Amino acid sequence: MAKVSIIGTGTWGIALGMVLAQNGHEVTAWSALPKEIEALRESYTCKNLPGVEIPRSIVFTADLQEACTDKEMLVLSVPSVFTRGVAKQMNPFVKEGQLIVSVAKGIEEKTLMTMSQQIEEELPMANVAVLSGPSHAEEVSRGIPTTVVAGAKDRQTAEHIQNLFMSSVFRVYTSPDILGIELGGALKNVIALAAGVSDGLGCGDNTKAALMTRGIAEITRLGVAMGGKPETFSGLSGIGDLIVTCTSMHSRNRRAGILIGQGKTMQEAMDEVQMVVEGVYSAKAALALSKKYNVSMPLVQETNQVLFGGKTAAEALKDLMLRDRTIESENLLWENK
Amino acid sequence: MAKVSIIGTGTWGIALGMVLAQNGHEVTAWSALPKEIEALRESYTCKNLPGVEIPRSIVFTADLQEACTDKEMLVLSVPSVFTRGVAKQMNPFVKEGQLIVSVAKGIEEKTLMTMSQQIEEELPMANVAVLSGPSHAEEVSRGIPTTVVAGAKDRQTAEHIQNLFMSSVFRVYTSPDILGIELGGALKNVIALAAGVSDGLGCGDNTKAALMTRGIAEITRLGVAMGGKPETFSGLSGIGDLIVTCTSMHSRNRRAGILIGQGKTMQEAMDEVQMVVEGVYSAKAALALSKKYNVSMPLVQETNQVLFGGKTAAEALKDLMLRDRTIESENLLWENK
Repeated sequence: MAKVSIIGTGTWGIALGMVLAQNGHEVTAWSALPKEIEALRESYTCKNLPGVEIPRSIVFTADLQEACTDKEMLVLSVPSVFTRGVAKQMNPFVKEGQLIVSVAKGIEEKTLMTMSQQIEEELPMANVAVLSGPSHAEEVSRGIPTTVVAGAKDRQTAEHIQNLFMSSVFRVYTSPDILGIELGGALKNVIALAAGVSDGLGCGDNTKAALMTRGIAEITRLGVAMGGKPETFSGLSGIGDLIVTCTSMHSRNRRAGILIGQGKTMQEAMDEVQMVVEGVYSAKAALALSKKYNVSMPLVQETNQVLFGGKTAAEALKDLMLRDRTIESENLLWENK
Repeated sequence: MAKVSIIGTGTWGIALGMVLAQNGHEVTAWSALPKEIEALRESYTCKNLPGVEIPRSIVFTADLQEACTDKEMLVLSVPSVFTRGVAKQMNPFVKEGQLIVSVAKGIEEKTLMTMSQQIEEELPMANVAVLSGPSHAEEVSRGIPTTVVAGAKDRQTAEHIQNLFMSSVFRVYTSPDILGIELGGALKNVIALAAGVSDGLGCGDNTKAALMTRGIAEITRLGVAMGGKPETFSGLSGIGDLIVTCTSMHSRNRRAGILIGQGKTMQEAMDEVQMVVEGVYSAKAALALSKKYNVSMPLVQETNQVLFGGKTAAEALKDLMLRDRTIESENLLWENK
């Protein structure tokens, strides 16, 4: 059994710590907030995972050095906007070749870097890998069957992560495509937001399935131009994660999208949802990346127009439907005709 | 404007006829049942499309010769089990090079042939194409934005179909991959059934997204071995159609799956749903094809075990979760490691 740490005690960090503890590993979990650590130590419950009992074997600490020392794996699960900062704080405590598994999703607004790229910049001595897939923390913490993909630079690392996490309710696949895995997870929220807008406009299942399918096609085009693999975007961290996000009743992106579809402005929608709506930031990042890599992303473009350009959702949808008549995939053409 | 005919006045045939009539084409619609034609002529409504008014410009006929004569396009939309028989009846009336667009989904149990392959066998003089995608007839008939893909042997034919159908609420993409389009549509119902079983077992959104993602991966593996293109299975007729089927409240496959997940036998579930459950037949066809082409399809295999082998759904799910640890995509491997 291995000694491992969870860096960040949000719902996803807790759920992954539970999977590891249930597999018999010695789990330490760190938070920057001493009050949070106190509450966790006292109750072994988490307010955002109602009814879930956290295994008593998990050790909670507010000491980052303790969390980073002598551990076979560090799971970095702080929110994406705090990832670089926490990685920087970890620097003095991380040893050469330390396995770090990044599980947050996002793209840094200023640099357009993925999570693992930021972590590598702050912790150049570490072996940085990722874990992603269709996985609501609420369900994982209740033992509901879930599948994810572990991406690493070499096969041994990916299989090591697979062995640590895998159980009868948590199936882990391996992949060499770290970048593809991260881009799918980071960009899916733009599409979830657009799918919400379609719901808010009163469109149907046909429309939503179209937005999801054409949305992942755009993300694939961009991701492949950036060096990701098409297979990854068709996989658990791509379309799988997009499906779970677009069909969930709890997705903030979807809820904000519904309000915008009903005619609210982006700001009104954000105020009403009262939480960070990741898709709004991903929309900006996706647009910037599509320009940088010169990739056509009509759905991302129209979503940005609606969010920041004052275009109505109905107009945007109509423009998407009436774009130039085209083939479905640029890779598939008729031969000699 | 073109003269076109719809062969088969089910909900999908009617909905497509409405799209064409709204685009200004002269539409004739044929049914083998004189009573159905009478009812349609009288009311210009369809009992399975409540509240929908059929355009008065559509001409209904029970005369197959009339329907097949002097038409720019024949849309063949009878249920899949009647397709070969109706094509045979059409044979004397179909001219050389006649464009026929097949819109039914299925695989012939005895021959394992797709719809277009059966039509070509019965009507070797015709130019057979297909149209498919995430498209509930109920939504298309109410003008809800929908996207589909038209597959044909040559670009001109595909673009001709695109031009006839396309409108501000019905967007048509083109593709050369007829086989891939047909396989996605025919095999998706097995996965929808399995997704229903997962719901019936009380599993969550994570589990269902996993089954859908790994399900389309299996269909892609099989489809590519048969000559289809991977891009097609990631497209509207593949994952798009699967999404709309798995998330719909109205899918019979999903409803039957839920009952089986709750512990009913296949026969009890079929009796309770009281309609043909296409996924049960597709499950058999998919298994036969996976053997014929020597493709690993664990989800299809377990679904067949549950449907015909007396295995419980819970056991099947556990066996799927605990299969050999594996990589996500066989196409993606680590280099030199």
